[in-house]
Amino acid sequence: MEIACDEAVSGMEANDGGPFGAVIVRNGEVIARAHNEVLSSNDPTAHAEILAIRRASAVLGNFDLSECILYTTCYPCPMCMGAVLWARIPAVYYGATREDAAAGGFDDAHFYTMIQNPQSALNLRPLDTENAKSVFAKWLSKENRRYY
Amino acid sequence: MEIACDEAVSGMEANDGGPFGAVIVRNGEVIARAHNEVLSSNDPTAHAEILAIRRASAVLGNFDLSECILYTTCYPCPMCMGAVLWARIPAVYYGATREDAAAGGFDDAHFYTMIQNPQSALNLRPLDTENAKSVFAKWLSKENRRYY
Repeated sequence: MEIACDEAVSGMEANDGGPFGAVIVRNGEVIARAHNEVLSSNDPTAHAEILAIRRASAVLGNFDLSECILYTTCYPCPMCMGAVLWARIPAVYYGATREDAAAGGFDDAHFYTMIQNPQSALNLRPLDTENAKSVFAKWLSKENRRYY
Repeated sequence: MEIACDEAVSGMEANDGGPFGAVIVRNGEVIARAHNEVLSSNDPTAHAEILAIRRASAVLGNFDLSECILYTTCYPCPMCMGAVLWARIPAVYYGATREDAAAGGFDDAHFYTMIQNPQSALNLRPLDTENAKSVFAKWLSKENRRYY
């Protein structure tokens, strides 16, 4: 967490993004560290946790991080929590809470509400359903399909 | 949606990942297209929507995609929905539903449950709270801080 906080402060001071840092540890060894780079990279997905997960996966050459622990300076937003779940990370230690983040001007508490009811935040509609469904039919008829 | 479906099929056939495609349109012009690359890139965050958002942001040099529309072959998972919200994308058209995805072997419907109660899926604990809180204090005392 000490390293994650250092990442957060250095990223903030460099104007790379908000005050967020993350570290991924495997077998007691730090294999990835990151800070928020939304501003410097112009990438809205460049949260510290997402970058740490991408870097750890690259280090291990594996999308499965089930032997890893994530340390993050703040309770993950829904995007990052989703990434944690997809990466099968079994343990997450967070520093600040969502309430602390809101006090710092990052109110993603309402993101958790919106994620359950996204229609409240955006125009979300089905389109050309049959075409998209046929893609799944092709997938299911594919012999060497691999799940992740 | 036609292009998104083509992306999904070509990505699947190339074994890049699952059968998912996404396209981002601005002022009637396709500015980014992507398919799932979780398998080929070993990146658990490489969903079609995430990649399309990252590419569109790179094209525009902006983390704000509030003038864009996302077309995706399947209802976005929580990670991707979070990315949509962060990118301020105001409209999303999806082809298949979460139920179609589940029938195809991608049951992220339970991700929506887990995201609200992540403790049920992983060990999620506060740690070294005061240190992390002090990072927000540093942020709030930073003069040229910029929100995203």
